[in-house]
Amino acid sequence: MTDNMTRLRVGQGYDVHRLVEGRKLILGGVHIPSELGLLGHSDADALLHAVTDAVLGACAMGDIGTHFSDTDPQFEGADSGLLLKNVIEKARVKGFKLLNVDSTLICQSPKLAPHMAAMHQSLSTLCGLPLDAVNIKAKTNEKLGYLGRKEAIEAQAVVLMVKGA
Amino acid sequence: MTDNMTRLRVGQGYDVHRLVEGRKLILGGVHIPSELGLLGHSDADALLHAVTDAVLGACAMGDIGTHFSDTDPQFEGADSGLLLKNVIEKARVKGFKLLNVDSTLICQSPKLAPHMAAMHQSLSTLCGLPLDAVNIKAKTNEKLGYLGRKEAIEAQAVVLMVKGA
Amino acid sequence: MTDNMTRLRVGQGYDVHRLVEGRKLILGGVHIPSELGLLGHSDADALLHAVTDAVLGACAMGDIGTHFSDTDPQFEGADSGLLLKNVIEKARVKGFKLLNVDSTLICQSPKLAPHMAAMHQSLSTLCGLPLDAVNIKAKTNEKLGYLGRKEAIEAQAVVLMVKGA
Ligand SMILES: [Mg+2]
Ligand SMILES: [Mg+2]
Ligand SMILES: [Mg+2]
Repeated sequence: MTDNMTRLRVGQGYDVHRLVEGRKLILGGVHIPSELGLLGHSDADALLHAVTDAVLGACAMGDIGTHFSDTDPQFEGADSGLLLKNVIEKARVKGFKLLNVDSTLICQSPKLAPHMAAMHQSLSTLCGLPLDAVNIKAKTNEKLGYLGRKEAIEAQAVVLMVKGA
Repeated sequence: MTDNMTRLRVGQGYDVHRLVEGRKLILGGVHIPSELGLLGHSDADALLHAVTDAVLGACAMGDIGTHFSDTDPQFEGADSGLLLKNVIEKARVKGFKLLNVDSTLICQSPKLAPHMAAMHQSLSTLCGLPLDAVNIKAKTNEKLGYLGRKEAIEAQAVVLMVKGA
Repeated sequence: MTDNMTRLRVGQGYDVHRLVEGRKLILGGVHIPSELGLLGHSDADALLHAVTDAVLGACAMGDIGTHFSDTDPQFEGADSGLLLKNVIEKARVKGFKLLNVDSTLICQSPKLAPHMAAMHQSLSTLCGLPLDAVNIKAKTNEKLGYLGRKEAIEAQAVVLMVKGA
Protein backbone atom coordinates (compact mmCIF):
# COMPACT_ATOMS: atom_id res chain seq x y z
CA MET A 1 0.00 0.00 0.00
CA THR A 2 2.75 2.41 0.98
CA ASP A 3 4.69 1.11 -2.03
CA ASN A 4 1.76 2.25 -4.10
CA MET A 5 1.72 5.74 -2.62
CA THR A 6 5.44 6.11 -3.28
CA ARG A 7 4.43 6.63 -6.92
CA LEU A 8 2.89 10.02 -6.07
CA ARG A 9 4.81 13.20 -6.92
CA VAL A 10 4.32 16.88 -6.13
CA GLY A 11 5.78 19.71 -8.22
CA GLN A 12 5.83 23.50 -7.97
CA GLY A 13 6.45 26.32 -10.40
CA TYR A 14 7.19 30.05 -10.29
CA ASP A 15 7.43 32.56 -13.10
CA VAL A 16 7.52 36.29 -13.56
CA HIS A 17 7.60 38.44 -16.72
CA ARG A 18 7.80 42.19 -17.21
CA LEU A 19 4.78 44.14 -18.46
CA VAL A 20 5.77 46.31 -21.43
CA GLU A 21 4.16 48.24 -24.28
CA GLY A 22 3.84 46.64 -27.71
CA ARG A 23 3.25 43.06 -26.56
CA LYS A 24 0.07 41.01 -26.34
CA LEU A 25 -0.96 39.81 -22.89
CA ILE A 26 -1.42 36.03 -22.98
CA LEU A 27 -2.25 34.18 -19.75
CA GLY A 28 -3.29 30.55 -19.54
CA GLY A 29 -3.35 30.48 -23.34
CA VAL A 30 -5.95 33.25 -23.45
CA HIS A 31 -5.43 36.67 -25.08
CA ILE A 32 -6.41 39.34 -22.56
CA PRO A 33 -7.06 42.86 -23.89
CA SER A 34 -4.49 45.13 -22.23
CA GLU A 35 -2.35 48.18 -23.03
CA LEU A 36 0.67 46.25 -21.73
CA GLY A 37 1.78 42.68 -22.45
CA LEU A 38 4.39 40.34 -21.04
CA LEU A 39 7.95 40.51 -22.35
CA GLY A 40 9.74 37.28 -23.24
CA HIS A 41 11.29 35.15 -25.92
CA SER A 42 8.13 33.03 -26.28
CA ASP A 43 4.62 34.44 -25.85
CA ALA A 44 5.69 34.97 -22.21
CA ASP A 45 2.63 33.24 -20.74
CA ALA A 46 3.77 33.26 -17.11
CA LEU A 47 0.90 31.04 -15.96
CA LEU A 48 1.60 28.28 -18.47
CA HIS A 49 5.34 28.54 -17.74
CA ALA A 50 4.75 28.05 -14.01
CA VAL A 51 2.48 25.05 -14.67
CA THR A 52 5.01 23.60 -17.14
CA ASP A 53 7.78 23.93 -14.55
CA ALA A 54 5.60 22.28 -11.90
CA VAL A 55 4.95 19.30 -14.19
CA LEU A 56 8.66 18.99 -15.00
CA GLY A 57 9.45 19.29 -11.30
CA ALA A 58 7.08 16.52 -10.23
CA CYS A 59 8.61 14.21 -12.86
CA ALA A 60 12.22 15.22 -12.01
CA MET A 61 12.70 16.34 -15.60
CA GLY A 62 14.55 19.60 -14.95
CA ASP A 63 13.02 22.94 -15.89
CA ILE A 64 11.45 24.80 -18.80
CA GLY A 65 14.71 26.53 -19.65
CA THR A 66 16.53 23.24 -20.26
CA HIS A 67 13.71 21.91 -22.46
CA PHE A 68 13.06 25.10 -24.46
CA SER A 69 16.04 27.43 -24.58
CA ASP A 70 15.12 31.12 -24.55
CA THR A 71 17.87 31.80 -27.07
CA ASP A 72 16.66 29.16 -29.57
CA PRO A 73 15.06 30.93 -32.58
CA GLN A 74 12.47 28.14 -32.94
CA PHE A 75 10.87 29.23 -29.66
CA GLU A 76 10.73 32.94 -30.54
CA GLY A 77 7.11 33.97 -30.02
CA ALA A 78 6.27 30.33 -29.24
CA ASP A 79 2.78 29.37 -28.13
CA SER A 80 3.41 28.29 -24.54
CA GLY A 81 0.41 25.98 -24.74
CA LEU A 82 2.37 23.84 -27.18
CA LEU A 83 5.31 23.77 -24.77
CA LEU A 84 3.07 22.66 -21.91
CA LYS A 85 1.44 19.96 -24.03
CA ASN A 86 4.88 18.79 -25.17
CA VAL A 87 6.04 18.46 -21.55
CA ILE A 88 2.89 16.61 -20.45
CA GLU A 89 3.41 14.20 -23.35
CA LYS A 90 7.09 13.66 -22.41
CA ALA A 91 5.93 12.97 -18.85
CA ARG A 92 3.27 10.54 -20.12
CA VAL A 93 5.92 8.62 -22.07
CA LYS A 94 7.84 8.25 -18.79
CA GLY A 95 4.68 6.90 -17.13
CA PHE A 96 3.51 10.06 -15.34
CA LYS A 97 -0.13 11.10 -15.16
CA LEU A 98 -1.32 14.52 -14.00
CA LEU A 99 -3.86 14.42 -11.15
CA ASN A 100 -4.53 18.12 -10.52
CA VAL A 101 -3.21 21.63 -11.03
CA ASP A 102 -3.61 24.68 -8.80
CA SER A 103 -2.18 28.11 -9.54
CA THR A 104 -2.14 31.80 -8.61
CA LEU A 105 -1.73 34.88 -10.78
CA ILE A 106 -0.48 38.03 -9.03
CA CYS A 107 -1.53 40.88 -11.26
CA GLN A 108 -2.27 44.44 -10.21
CA SER A 109 -3.70 45.31 -13.63
CA PRO A 110 -5.57 44.59 -15.88
CA LYS A 111 -8.52 43.07 -14.04
CA LEU A 112 -8.52 39.32 -14.71
CA ALA A 113 -11.99 38.49 -13.37
CA PRO A 114 -13.74 38.71 -16.78
CA HIS A 115 -11.21 36.22 -18.21
CA MET A 116 -10.97 33.61 -15.44
CA ALA A 117 -13.52 31.22 -16.97
CA ALA A 118 -11.78 31.27 -20.36
CA MET A 119 -8.35 30.71 -18.75
CA HIS A 120 -9.77 27.87 -16.65
CA GLN A 121 -11.22 26.17 -19.73
CA SER A 122 -8.02 26.72 -21.72
CA LEU A 123 -5.71 25.39 -18.99
CA SER A 124 -7.95 22.35 -18.45
CA THR A 125 -7.87 21.53 -22.17
CA LEU A 126 -4.09 21.98 -22.36
CA CYS A 127 -3.60 19.73 -19.32
CA GLY A 128 -6.05 17.10 -20.53
CA LEU A 129 -7.84 17.35 -17.19
CA PRO A 130 -11.50 17.98 -16.29
CA LEU A 131 -12.37 21.47 -15.06
CA ASP A 132 -12.73 20.18 -11.51
CA ALA A 133 -9.06 19.14 -11.38
CA VAL A 134 -7.70 22.53 -12.51
CA ASN A 135 -7.78 25.85 -10.68
CA ILE A 136 -6.54 29.39 -11.24
CA LYS A 137 -6.62 32.02 -8.51
CA ALA A 138 -6.00 35.71 -9.14
CA LYS A 139 -5.14 38.63 -6.88
CA THR A 140 -3.37 41.95 -6.77
CA ASN A 141 -0.17 42.51 -4.80
CA GLU A 142 -1.78 45.26 -2.67
CA LYS A 143 0.27 47.81 -4.69
CA LEU A 144 3.50 46.45 -3.17
CA GLY A 145 6.79 46.17 -5.08
CA TYR A 146 7.23 45.70 -8.82
CA LEU A 147 4.06 43.58 -9.02
CA GLY A 148 2.10 46.29 -7.25
CA ARG A 149 3.53 48.95 -9.60
CA LYS A 150 2.20 46.96 -12.60
CA GLU A 151 5.74 46.35 -13.85
CA ALA A 152 5.31 42.57 -13.99
CA ILE A 153 2.93 39.64 -13.50
CA GLU A 154 3.86 36.63 -11.35
CA ALA A 155 2.49 33.10 -11.55
CA GLN A 156 2.72 30.26 -9.04
CA ALA A 157 1.66 26.67 -9.59
CA VAL A 158 1.54 23.32 -7.85
CA VAL A 159 0.68 19.93 -9.37
CA LEU A 160 0.11 16.41 -8.15
CA MET A 161 1.13 13.51 -10.40
CA VAL A 162 1.32 9.72 -10.19
CA LYS A 163 3.86 7.44 -11.84
CA GLY A 164 3.00 4.08 -13.36
CA ALA A 165 -0.47 3.02 -14.37
CA MET B 1 -5.35 1.52 -6.83
CA THR B 2 -4.23 4.31 -9.13
CA ASP B 3 -7.89 5.15 -9.58
CA ASN B 4 -7.98 5.60 -5.86
CA MET B 5 -5.01 7.93 -5.81
CA THR B 6 -6.58 10.08 -8.51
CA ARG B 7 -8.85 11.39 -5.77
CA LEU B 8 -5.91 13.25 -4.19
CA ARG B 9 -5.56 17.02 -4.70
CA VAL B 10 -2.86 19.57 -3.88
CA GLY B 11 -3.53 23.31 -3.47
CA GLN B 12 -1.40 26.36 -2.84
CA GLY B 13 -2.03 29.85 -1.54
CA TYR B 14 -0.26 33.21 -1.43
CA ASP B 15 -1.25 36.41 0.31
CA VAL B 16 0.30 39.71 1.26
CA HIS B 17 -1.09 42.67 3.21
CA ARG B 18 0.38 46.05 4.09
CA LEU B 19 1.40 46.83 7.66
CA VAL B 20 -0.12 50.12 8.78
CA GLU B 21 -0.84 52.08 11.94
CA GLY B 22 -4.25 51.87 13.56
CA ARG B 23 -5.01 48.26 12.73
CA LYS B 24 -4.87 45.11 14.87
CA LEU B 25 -2.41 42.42 13.77
CA ILE B 26 -4.31 39.13 13.39
CA LEU B 27 -2.45 36.07 12.09
CA GLY B 28 -3.80 32.54 12.10
CA GLY B 29 -6.81 33.84 14.00
CA VAL B 30 -4.62 35.09 16.85
CA HIS B 31 -4.30 38.72 17.95
CA ILE B 32 -0.59 39.59 18.10
CA PRO B 33 0.38 42.72 20.06
CA SER B 34 2.02 45.07 17.56
CA GLU B 35 2.28 48.79 16.80
CA LEU B 36 1.30 48.01 13.20
CA GLY B 37 -1.48 45.82 11.86
CA LEU B 38 -2.47 44.46 8.47
CA LEU B 39 -4.58 46.60 6.15
CA GLY B 40 -7.54 45.01 4.40
CA HIS B 41 -11.29 44.89 3.97
CA SER B 42 -11.63 41.92 6.35
CA ASP B 43 -9.38 41.43 9.39
CA ALA B 44 -6.59 41.01 6.79
CA ASP B 45 -5.32 37.74 8.28
CA ALA B 46 -2.83 36.89 5.52
CA LEU B 47 -2.13 33.42 6.89
CA LEU B 48 -5.79 32.35 6.94
CA HIS B 49 -6.32 33.90 3.50
CA ALA B 50 -3.43 31.87 2.05
CA VAL B 51 -4.76 28.67 3.64
CA THR B 52 -8.29 29.46 2.43
CA ASP B 53 -7.01 29.96 -1.12
CA ALA B 54 -5.04 26.69 -0.94
CA VAL B 55 -8.18 24.78 0.09
CA LEU B 56 -10.20 26.41 -2.70
CA GLY B 57 -7.39 25.63 -5.12
CA ALA B 58 -7.20 21.95 -4.25
CA CYS B 59 -10.98 21.65 -4.74
CA ALA B 60 -10.99 23.72 -7.98
CA MET B 61 -13.40 26.16 -6.36
CA GLY B 62 -11.80 29.41 -7.55
CA ASP B 63 -10.30 31.87 -5.08
CA ILE B 64 -11.11 33.78 -1.92
CA GLY B 65 -11.95 36.92 -3.88
CA THR B 66 -14.76 35.20 -5.80
CA HIS B 67 -16.25 33.71 -2.61
CA PHE B 68 -15.94 36.80 -0.41
CA SER B 69 -15.79 40.05 -2.35
CA ASP B 70 -13.54 42.68 -0.79
CA THR B 71 -16.09 45.35 -1.70
CA ASP B 72 -19.03 43.56 -0.02
CA PRO B 73 -19.94 45.43 3.20
CA GLN B 74 -20.85 42.16 4.95
CA PHE B 75 -17.16 41.17 4.92
CA GLU B 76 -15.86 44.51 6.25
CA GLY B 77 -13.72 43.63 9.25
CA ALA B 78 -14.74 39.99 8.81
CA ASP B 79 -13.20 37.30 10.99
CA SER B 80 -11.15 35.35 8.43
CA GLY B 81 -11.50 32.24 10.58
CA LEU B 82 -15.19 32.20 9.69
CA LEU B 83 -14.32 32.53 5.99
CA LEU B 84 -11.87 29.58 6.22
CA LYS B 85 -14.42 27.43 8.07
CA ASN B 86 -17.05 28.35 5.47
CA VAL B 87 -14.78 27.25 2.64
CA ILE B 88 -13.82 23.97 4.35
CA GLU B 89 -17.53 23.26 4.84
CA LYS B 90 -18.29 24.05 1.17
CA ALA B 91 -15.46 21.67 0.22
CA ARG B 92 -16.84 18.99 2.55
CA VAL B 93 -20.24 19.24 0.89
CA LYS B 94 -18.49 18.55 -2.43
CA GLY B 95 -16.83 15.49 -0.88
CA PHE B 96 -13.40 16.95 -0.11
CA LYS B 97 -11.52 16.18 3.11
CA LEU B 98 -8.43 18.09 4.24
CA LEU B 99 -5.39 15.88 4.97
CA ASN B 100 -2.75 18.42 6.00
CA VAL B 101 -1.77 22.09 5.89
CA ASP B 102 1.70 23.62 5.78
CA SER B 103 2.42 27.34 5.67
CA THR B 104 5.06 30.06 5.98
CA LEU B 105 4.81 33.59 7.36
CA ILE B 106 7.40 36.08 6.11
CA CYS B 107 7.47 38.81 8.71
CA GLN B 108 10.40 41.06 9.57
CA SER B 109 8.63 42.42 12.65
CA PRO B 110 7.12 41.84 15.19
CA LYS B 111 8.74 38.65 16.46
CA LEU B 112 6.27 35.80 15.98
CA ALA B 113 8.05 33.14 18.04
CA PRO B 114 6.04 33.83 21.24
CA HIS B 115 2.80 33.36 19.29
CA MET B 116 3.55 30.30 17.16
CA ALA B 117 1.97 27.79 19.55
CA ALA B 118 -1.26 29.81 19.79
CA MET B 119 -1.43 30.22 16.00
CA HIS B 120 -0.78 26.50 15.54
CA GLN B 121 -3.62 25.62 17.92
CA SER B 122 -5.95 28.16 16.31
CA LEU B 123 -5.25 27.03 12.75
CA SER B 124 -5.68 23.37 13.71
CA THR B 125 -9.03 24.10 15.30
CA LEU B 126 -10.23 26.14 12.32
CA CYS B 127 -9.16 23.37 9.92
CA GLY B 128 -10.67 20.58 12.04
CA LEU B 129 -7.31 18.81 11.93
CA PRO B 130 -5.05 17.46 14.68
CA LEU B 131 -1.98 19.53 15.57
CA ASP B 132 0.28 17.01 13.83
CA ALA B 133 -1.40 17.65 10.47
CA VAL B 134 -0.98 21.45 10.60
CA ASN B 135 2.20 23.50 10.47
CA ILE B 136 3.19 27.17 10.46
CA LYS B 137 6.74 28.30 9.73
CA ALA B 138 7.97 31.85 10.31
CA LYS B 139 10.95 33.81 9.10
CA THR B 140 12.19 37.28 8.26
CA ASN B 141 12.97 38.38 4.72
CA GLU B 142 16.60 39.19 5.60
CA LYS B 143 15.65 42.90 5.44
CA LEU B 144 15.09 42.60 1.67
CA GLY B 145 12.36 44.47 -0.23
CA TYR B 146 9.01 45.63 1.16
CA LEU B 147 8.79 42.61 3.48
CA GLY B 148 12.25 43.37 4.85
CA ARG B 149 11.31 47.03 5.37
CA LYS B 150 8.34 45.92 7.54
CA GLU B 151 5.87 47.39 5.04
CA ALA B 152 3.95 44.12 4.68
CA ILE B 153 3.60 40.50 5.81
CA GLU B 154 3.42 37.61 3.31
CA ALA B 155 1.88 34.19 3.81
CA GLN B 156 2.31 31.03 1.75
CA ALA B 157 0.37 27.79 2.16
CA VAL B 158 0.04 24.34 0.67
CA VAL B 159 -2.63 21.73 1.43
CA LEU B 160 -3.31 18.12 0.55
CA MET B 161 -6.92 16.97 0.19
CA VAL B 162 -8.79 13.85 -0.88
CA LYS B 163 -12.10 13.65 -2.69
CA GLY B 164 -14.79 11.06 -1.93
CA ALA B 165 -14.94 9.11 1.29
CA MET C 1 -8.24 2.99 1.38
CA THR C 2 -8.95 6.63 2.16
CA ASP C 3 -7.63 5.94 5.64
CA ASN C 4 -4.41 4.90 3.97
CA MET C 5 -4.14 8.07 1.93
CA THR C 6 -4.65 10.16 5.04
CA ARG C 7 -1.05 9.30 5.87
CA LEU C 8 0.19 11.51 3.00
CA ARG C 9 1.61 14.96 3.75
CA VAL C 10 2.68 17.91 1.62
CA GLY C 11 5.16 20.57 2.77
CA GLN C 12 6.53 23.78 1.32
CA GLY C 13 9.59 25.92 1.96
CA TYR C 14 10.84 29.42 1.12
CA ASP C 15 14.19 31.01 1.79
CA VAL C 16 16.15 34.05 0.71
CA HIS C 17 19.67 35.20 1.57
CA ARG C 18 21.62 38.30 0.60
CA LEU C 19 24.51 38.06 -1.87
CA VAL C 20 27.61 39.75 -0.42
CA GLU C 21 31.35 39.89 -0.99
CA GLY C 22 33.67 37.69 1.05
CA ARG C 23 31.37 34.67 1.32
CA LYS C 24 31.38 31.34 -0.53
CA LEU C 25 28.29 30.56 -2.61
CA ILE C 26 26.92 27.17 -1.54
CA LEU C 27 23.68 25.90 -3.12
CA GLY C 28 22.31 22.40 -2.73
CA GLY C 29 25.49 21.50 -0.86
CA VAL C 30 27.64 22.43 -3.88
CA HIS C 31 30.29 25.18 -3.90
CA ILE C 32 29.63 27.41 -6.90
CA PRO C 33 32.46 29.69 -8.05
CA SER C 34 31.19 33.27 -7.67
CA GLU C 35 32.43 36.73 -6.71
CA LEU C 36 29.52 36.98 -4.27
CA GLY C 37 28.25 34.47 -1.73
CA LEU C 38 25.20 34.17 0.49
CA LEU C 39 25.18 35.88 3.87
CA GLY C 40 23.96 33.95 6.90
CA HIS C 41 24.80 32.42 10.25
CA SER C 42 25.25 28.96 8.71
CA ASP C 43 26.65 28.39 5.21
CA ALA C 44 23.46 30.17 4.06
CA ASP C 45 22.50 27.45 1.56
CA ALA C 46 19.06 28.82 0.64
CA LEU C 47 18.11 25.75 -1.38
CA LEU C 48 18.81 23.30 1.44
CA HIS C 49 17.07 25.61 3.91
CA ALA C 50 13.92 25.69 1.78
CA VAL C 51 13.94 21.89 1.42
CA THR C 52 14.57 21.48 5.17
CA ASP C 53 11.62 23.74 5.94
CA ALA C 54 9.40 21.81 3.51
CA VAL C 55 10.28 18.52 5.24
CA LEU C 56 9.59 20.01 8.67
CA GLY C 57 6.35 21.45 7.32
CA ALA C 58 5.06 18.16 5.96
CA CYS C 59 5.77 16.49 9.32
CA ALA C 60 4.31 19.38 11.36
CA MET C 61 7.63 19.78 13.12
CA GLY C 62 7.87 23.58 13.06
CA ASP C 63 10.59 25.35 11.10
CA ILE C 64 14.34 25.44 10.62
CA GLY C 65 14.71 28.39 13.00
CA THR C 66 13.22 26.50 15.93
CA HIS C 67 15.44 23.45 15.30
CA PHE C 68 18.69 25.32 14.59
CA SER C 69 18.79 28.79 16.14
CA ASP C 70 20.64 31.35 14.04
CA THR C 71 22.15 32.81 17.21
CA ASP C 72 23.52 29.46 18.47
CA PRO C 73 27.35 29.45 18.06
CA GLN C 74 27.33 25.72 17.23
CA PHE C 75 25.56 26.48 13.94
CA GLU C 76 27.94 29.31 12.90
CA GLY C 77 29.14 28.40 9.42
CA ALA C 78 27.21 25.12 9.71
CA ASP C 79 27.03 22.75 6.74
CA SER C 80 23.32 22.95 5.87
CA GLY C 81 23.52 19.44 4.44
CA LEU C 82 24.01 18.15 7.97
CA LEU C 83 20.97 20.15 9.12
CA LEU C 84 18.83 18.67 6.35
CA LYS C 85 20.01 15.14 7.10
CA ASN C 86 19.33 15.71 10.80
CA VAL C 87 15.75 16.82 10.05
CA ILE C 88 15.09 13.89 7.70
CA GLU C 89 16.34 11.53 10.43
CA LYS C 90 14.10 13.20 13.05
CA ALA C 91 11.19 12.78 10.64
CA ARG C 92 12.10 9.13 10.06
CA VAL C 93 12.05 8.49 13.81
CA LYS C 94 8.50 9.89 13.83
CA GLY C 95 7.57 7.48 11.03
CA PHE C 96 7.79 9.88 8.06
CA LYS C 97 9.31 8.88 4.74
CA LEU C 98 10.16 11.34 1.98
CA LEU C 99 8.57 10.55 -1.42
CA ASN C 100 9.83 13.39 -3.62
CA VAL C 101 11.32 16.88 -3.61
CA ASP C 102 10.88 19.67 -6.15
CA SER C 103 12.48 23.10 -5.91
CA THR C 104 13.27 26.36 -7.70
CA LEU C 105 16.27 28.67 -7.42
CA ILE C 106 15.72 32.30 -8.45
CA CYS C 107 19.16 33.63 -9.21
CA GLN C 108 20.03 36.43 -11.61
CA SER C 109 23.75 35.67 -11.39
CA PRO C 110 25.97 33.62 -11.49
CA LYS C 111 24.74 31.21 -14.15
CA LEU C 112 23.72 27.97 -12.45
CA ALA C 113 23.36 25.77 -15.55
CA PRO C 114 26.90 24.31 -15.30
CA HIS C 115 26.21 23.27 -11.69
CA MET C 116 22.69 21.83 -11.92
CA ALA C 117 23.81 18.19 -12.31
CA ALA C 118 26.11 18.42 -9.28
CA MET C 119 23.40 20.07 -7.16
CA HIS C 120 20.88 17.45 -8.29
CA GLN C 121 23.23 14.63 -7.27
CA SER C 122 24.07 16.32 -3.97
CA LEU C 123 20.44 17.00 -3.01
CA SER C 124 19.44 13.43 -3.92
CA THR C 125 22.20 12.02 -1.72
CA LEU C 126 21.30 14.31 1.18
CA CYS C 127 17.61 13.33 0.89
CA GLY C 128 18.34 9.61 0.53
CA LEU C 129 16.23 9.62 -2.64
CA PRO C 130 16.93 8.45 -6.20
CA LEU C 131 17.68 11.15 -8.77
CA ASP C 132 14.27 10.65 -10.35
CA ALA C 133 12.50 11.70 -7.14
CA VAL C 134 14.42 14.97 -6.74
CA ASN C 135 14.33 18.08 -8.91
CA ILE C 136 15.90 21.54 -8.97
CA LYS C 137 14.76 24.25 -11.35
CA ALA C 138 16.65 27.50 -11.91
CA LYS C 139 15.72 30.83 -13.40
CA THR C 140 16.44 34.54 -13.28
CA ASN C 141 13.96 37.09 -11.95
CA GLU C 142 13.87 38.97 -15.28
CA LYS C 143 15.99 41.70 -13.61
CA LEU C 144 13.05 42.58 -11.32
CA GLY C 145 13.44 43.65 -7.68
CA TYR C 146 16.25 42.69 -5.31
CA LEU C 147 16.57 39.26 -6.91
CA GLY C 148 16.89 40.85 -10.34
CA ARG C 149 19.51 43.29 -9.03
CA LYS C 150 21.64 40.32 -7.84
CA GLU C 151 21.25 41.39 -4.21
CA ALA C 152 19.90 38.00 -3.10
CA ILE C 153 19.04 34.45 -4.14
CA GLU C 154 15.63 32.89 -3.38
CA ALA C 155 14.76 29.22 -3.07
CA GLN C 156 11.34 27.54 -3.09
CA ALA C 157 10.64 23.88 -2.35
CA VAL C 158 7.79 21.42 -2.07
CA VAL C 159 7.90 17.86 -0.75
CA LEU C 160 5.57 14.90 -0.52
CA MET C 161 5.89 12.56 2.46
CA VAL C 162 4.05 9.56 3.89
CA LYS C 163 3.62 8.64 7.55
CA GLY C 164 3.79 5.08 8.85
CA ALA C 165 5.35 2.18 6.96
MG1 LIG D 1 8.57 32.43 -18.33
MG1 LIG E 1 -5.80 38.71 1.90
MG1 LIG F 1 18.16 30.37 5.33
